Amino acid sequence: MNAMGFERILGGVCAPQGFLAAGVACGIKGDGRPDLALVKSDREATVAGIFTTNALPAAPVTLTSERVRAGSAGAVVVSSGNANAMTGERGMADALAMAGEVESTLGLAEGQALVCSTGPIGVQLPMDKVVAGISQAAGELSPGGNTDAAKAIMTTDTYPKELAVEMEIAGRVVRMGAMAKGAGMIHPNMATMISLITTDMPLDHDTMQQWLCQAGEWSFNRISVDGCQSTNDTVLMMANGAALPQGYTMTNEEAELFFRALCWLTANLAMALVKDGEGATKLLRIVVNGARDDAEAVVIAESIAVSDLVKCSFFGGAPNWGRIAAAAGSAGVPLDPDSLDIYVGEYKLVSGGVPLECDHDDLVRMLARDEAEITVDLGLGSGSAFYLTTDLSTEYVEINAEFS
Amino acid sequence: MNAMGFERILGGVCAPQGFLAAGVACGIKGDGRPDLALVKSDREATVAGIFTTNALPAAPVTLTSERVRAGSAGAVVVSSGNANAMTGERGMADALAMAGEVESTLGLAEGQALVCSTGPIGVQLPMDKVVAGISQAAGELSPGGNTDAAKAIMTTDTYPKELAVEMEIAGRVVRMGAMAKGAGMIHPNMATMISLITTDMPLDHDTMQQWLCQAGEWSFNRISVDGCQSTNDTVLMMANGAALPQGYTMTNEEAELFFRALCWLTANLAMALVKDGEGATKLLRIVVNGARDDAEAVVIAESIAVSDLVKCSFFGGAPNWGRIAAAAGSAGVPLDPDSLDIYVGEYKLVSGGVPLECDHDDLVRMLARDEAEITVDLGLGSGSAFYLTTDLSTEYVEINAEFS
Repeated sequence: MNAMGFERILGGVCAPQGFLAAGVACGIKGDGRPDLALVKSDREATVAGIFTTNALPAAPVTLTSERVRAGSAGAVVVSSGNANAMTGERGMADALAMAGEVESTLGLAEGQALVCSTGPIGVQLPMDKVVAGISQAAGELSPGGNTDAAKAIMTTDTYPKELAVEMEIAGRVVRMGAMAKGAGMIHPNMATMISLITTDMPLDHDTMQQWLCQAGEWSFNRISVDGCQSTNDTVLMMANGAALPQGYTMTNEEAELFFRALCWLTANLAMALVKDGEGATKLLRIVVNGARDDAEAVVIAESIAVSDLVKCSFFGGAPNWGRIAAAAGSAGVPLDPDSLDIYVGEYKLVSGGVPLECDHDDLVRMLARDEAEITVDLGLGSGSAFYLTTDLSTEYVEINAEFS
Repeated sequence: MNAMGFERILGGVCAPQGFLAAGVACGIKGDGRPDLALVKSDREATVAGIFTTNALPAAPVTLTSERVRAGSAGAVVVSSGNANAMTGERGMADALAMAGEVESTLGLAEGQALVCSTGPIGVQLPMDKVVAGISQAAGELSPGGNTDAAKAIMTTDTYPKELAVEMEIAGRVVRMGAMAKGAGMIHPNMATMISLITTDMPLDHDTMQQWLCQAGEWSFNRISVDGCQSTNDTVLMMANGAALPQGYTMTNEEAELFFRALCWLTANLAMALVKDGEGATKLLRIVVNGARDDAEAVVIAESIAVSDLVKCSFFGGAPNWGRIAAAAGSAGVPLDPDSLDIYVGEYKLVSGGVPLECDHDDLVRMLARDEAEITVDLGLGSGSAFYLTTDLSTEYVEINAEFS
């Protein structure tokens, strides 16, 4: 084990004991790419979830959030290439039918299947293909199916995203695995993202829900690719308890370790989503220090992270600190220009609200790298926050222009 | 006079009696383009103003907003090519020196000159050039200098923006004129915009301030090019009373006419700013009807107007109503999908939250035009609002990427 008390391992969502996965191409996407993932626990699992706050949630979000509140499930099916959003009564019937198909195929009780969909909005699901896909995926479920599943949930992602960790709790090996997809419409609460986290730790619903919300706040709620929030964003967590006796209660130290591993997992998935953002050429990490409190720091960090002008300037490789300052100032939070410092990487560009001389060539060389950190110190208190975003490239516009 | 009771005339800010203007190139911009405008009233004028709500206002904004509260002025100087923002104590001293130079050159009392600056943030003004420019502009002041002045306030604008109207009040011809600049960082409260409105109507400060705020709310506060708010936005209005005896009190009908003309002027300037937005290929008018109240309608209209995904889809010429719905749903306002209708132009694309079949070719032909209207009917009440924005083009990114 490393200094953090856990270790990264392979295996994605199948790393924890008792989880099987599969990913198949059933024809939703039309171009032959995989588009249906199925993940099954060998026993009933406790579940938790966080969902988009969009006022027009997709049918699967409505259905799955209800089922997560009930507290347990045995399987998750994810279709990609069609969001089943803005599809009215038929959309809800289709989401229910997807769940029913998984339940009957896998021999689960009614209500034990969770459903996610991601892709374009407003198109009815091709249910004959989806039903055939569920049947095929059920036949292919295996403990090595994690990467197939991670590929099958992708939309405009350029590579599958999965992670797993292992730790020791009460003398047993406990594992946690995850997969995620993102790419466009990435913004808090949530992005066009779907993520599933699995663990063989026994957990009760309330604790898991609370931990997942907190870990999500520090990861998925601190990333933005384009400031656009989708109708389908979902993070699910399943704990099947296979590693330890059901009802095992963690010591405070064990709980801290497990929560730390969960936060590491979600933070790294979130970073992977941003790095693979549509058209992104750079990962930008915005750090705001010296705010009156953390909440104000988050608001200012987000205001900088969603500024098209800031993002364009990093695409061009020339940091425009004036745009960073203007974005910070437009967050609706009172600031004192005389105590404002701005850094890009190790370079202090503004001190007490006034620009400093700096070696422009050095700065440009630093910005040729694929990551940059913007630090804004407000000098008003001890509140701080971070935010991850990308630059805004001509390629982002091309990807999303759908030329006709 | 037309049906609205006023008529469009030429002359910009010099259309009303007693206003002189000039625009010169004094070397702030470095490429020889005009960069200093001066507008003078032949008598003390009542003034009103609206200013950026950015928490890091530029020095001239701080100075001029104080002077506007005092209620009167005799001249306005605008420099372009340098925002005099984030320039610390020296910046404030320079703004004061610009005002002092105008006052001494034109023989005005201290406090009677207003100052605006627009351009890049964080660079100290070249005061020797500015002082020489003020002297040159003062020598060139003329009743035909309006277009020179309108050109001298431009930054990335591709053409000067001026307008004027004439109406009859109490048997006298009353005129109102205006100039404005915009282009990037265009977003409410305010954009990177500077506008000056002149009139020869006698007006008291409080009435004029109230009218200007209301007209601004329906125009400059309903436009967005890139969602970015600047440190320098300013709208000033000067009323010198040359057309009617000082202290003349308008009848209700006359006041309505004058206010209607003011709203027409600001609305048309705002539209011109959006049309000339950086890289814009289309003007998008967002209309939200059926909200619970107007305030909720504005929030939803703005959420659609700033969505990069919506704006990219119109750049490509294919309206993606799913993105429009997702943007509406992310505004933080509860919606009922079953009562949601979406139109693009005359085409109803969504009815009761569910997409309708439509002739795709017809729609694409319509979107080849340079203007499009998006109407979202929420079916919840009688609140409504509009918002103007542009598409998001690869050219916008190129303009703002400042490749190094």
